Amino acid sequence: MKLFNKVAIIGTGLIGGSIALAIKRRRLANRVIGLSRRKKTLIIAKKIKAIDEARSRVSELGDVDLVVLATPVGRIIELAPQLIKVIKKDCIVSDVGSTKQLILSRLSRNLPNYVGTHPLAGSQNSGIVFARADLFEGSTCIITPGWRMNSRALVKITLLWRRLGARVVYLNAAEHDRALSMVSHLPHVLAYSLMTSVGNKYLKYAASGLRDTTRIAASDPYLWADIFLSNRENMLKAIDLFGADLADMRQAIEKRDKRKLISIMEKARDKREKLENL
Amino acid sequence: MKLFNKVAIIGTGLIGGSIALAIKRRRLANRVIGLSRRKKTLIIAKKIKAIDEARSRVSELGDVDLVVLATPVGRIIELAPQLIKVIKKDCIVSDVGSTKQLILSRLSRNLPNYVGTHPLAGSQNSGIVFARADLFEGSTCIITPGWRMNSRALVKITLLWRRLGARVVYLNAAEHDRALSMVSHLPHVLAYSLMTSVGNKYLKYAASGLRDTTRIAASDPYLWADIFLSNRENMLKAIDLFGADLADMRQAIEKRDKRKLISIMEKARDKREKLENL
Repeated sequence: MKLFNKVAIIGTGLIGGSIALAIKRRRLANRVIGLSRRKKTLIIAKKIKAIDEARSRVSELGDVDLVVLATPVGRIIELAPQLIKVIKKDCIVSDVGSTKQLILSRLSRNLPNYVGTHPLAGSQNSGIVFARADLFEGSTCIITPGWRMNSRALVKITLLWRRLGARVVYLNAAEHDRALSMVSHLPHVLAYSLMTSVGNKYLKYAASGLRDTTRIAASDPYLWADIFLSNRENMLKAIDLFGADLADMRQAIEKRDKRKLISIMEKARDKREKLENL
Repeated sequence: MKLFNKVAIIGTGLIGGSIALAIKRRRLANRVIGLSRRKKTLIIAKKIKAIDEARSRVSELGDVDLVVLATPVGRIIELAPQLIKVIKKDCIVSDVGSTKQLILSRLSRNLPNYVGTHPLAGSQNSGIVFARADLFEGSTCIITPGWRMNSRALVKITLLWRRLGARVVYLNAAEHDRALSMVSHLPHVLAYSLMTSVGNKYLKYAASGLRDTTRIAASDPYLWADIFLSNRENMLKAIDLFGADLADMRQAIEKRDKRKLISIMEKARDKREKLENL
């Protein structure tokens, strides 16, 4: 069953490219139009049959039923005013940005059919070459409804993500940004900081511990700078909360308080086991 | 070729059990004796043919040629004085502790044939049930020579680890502990602290980022408390160095300094790529 006639994906990188690919493979739309500022990206997207048509400007979008903004957060906000001018009245607009409050505040006012999403999928890799039609299979997609709560748009976006293989959960934008600052954005800050701290001459002694802990420090700095700055208040709180917990462990080590140290680590390990079994 | 006649492995957990298993499979010794305080561990070790004989006391060791101490760091130090009384004069003593300076200072004085090692292998899992004969294949084993630099013992231990499939590197104990505080012990502290910080209600929104970053927070708290405390000075320095680097990122976020933020992250990412390609 086709969910849409024409779909436009703006930003055909890892996430946008994977959405396009999955929509094509599952025949969820008649046509998929890809937009990117990079010609190379569009050539690859066409070659792997992720998109039917390539465009380079928002003004060339045409009469699409759905626009998915899959660029970095800052670019989503820049594109919104242009989008309003060109789309038809009932066109559904969605985005896959990693922070939601700022985007919602800019898009929801002028785009009545806006529904935000955040697919919890991806990796440290970026770009269309890593796109996979099954990227969202078994993943979770958070949906953050717009201010006006347009139920037609909400249902359509929910169906889309279910058809892409994701489990859908609803969360308001403020709670989303708090949650993600802890489970995603903070781990990224820590991974980058840890790589900064480790001296080059010690890298050769690294085993899987450092490798796993810092895998996400290979992520795109431009993309993540946008995420950190668009979730600034929560990030500062998350870093400070972490700093206090780290200070507790530091103090236990300094005071040679083995009991305290083990107690902290046991609680952390139990929570990690809970995460493993979720 | 047999490297040893009788080998005793004290502490037949993940590392000790894997050494025993690999020695047996590769026929590097005529007999392997396993020591553990836990009867269950010894029963499993015998069942999977990691050891030929099981003992529960150091006093029952007999005339072995090599003793490998594979218990937590604190226990290695406790066992050393008992060991001195029972082993024959030319018996080689080695250990696989994750910190080396404290162990060396306690063992090297009274055990002339002591050579420390630290195989950079293992995982968050512990116990004989996770033991694998190929655990050290392609891994790095750091060898920290004893004070008296007994060349016969050094050669034998080097040969042993090469036969177990490891690349051998030599490092003095002080430099080992500094290096490992950065590439292994600090990541563990951060993983435990991060799990402490993340609220239970947010766990369900975690994707692979948090999972990878905190995999090692599932490690044994008793084992790691020993490691942190036996490498206390370096740990405090490592945490403070990391704290300063984290504060830099925090400040860039607070000041909305995107250029600074990206510059920090690019350097970190480049170092992470270097690590990937090592």
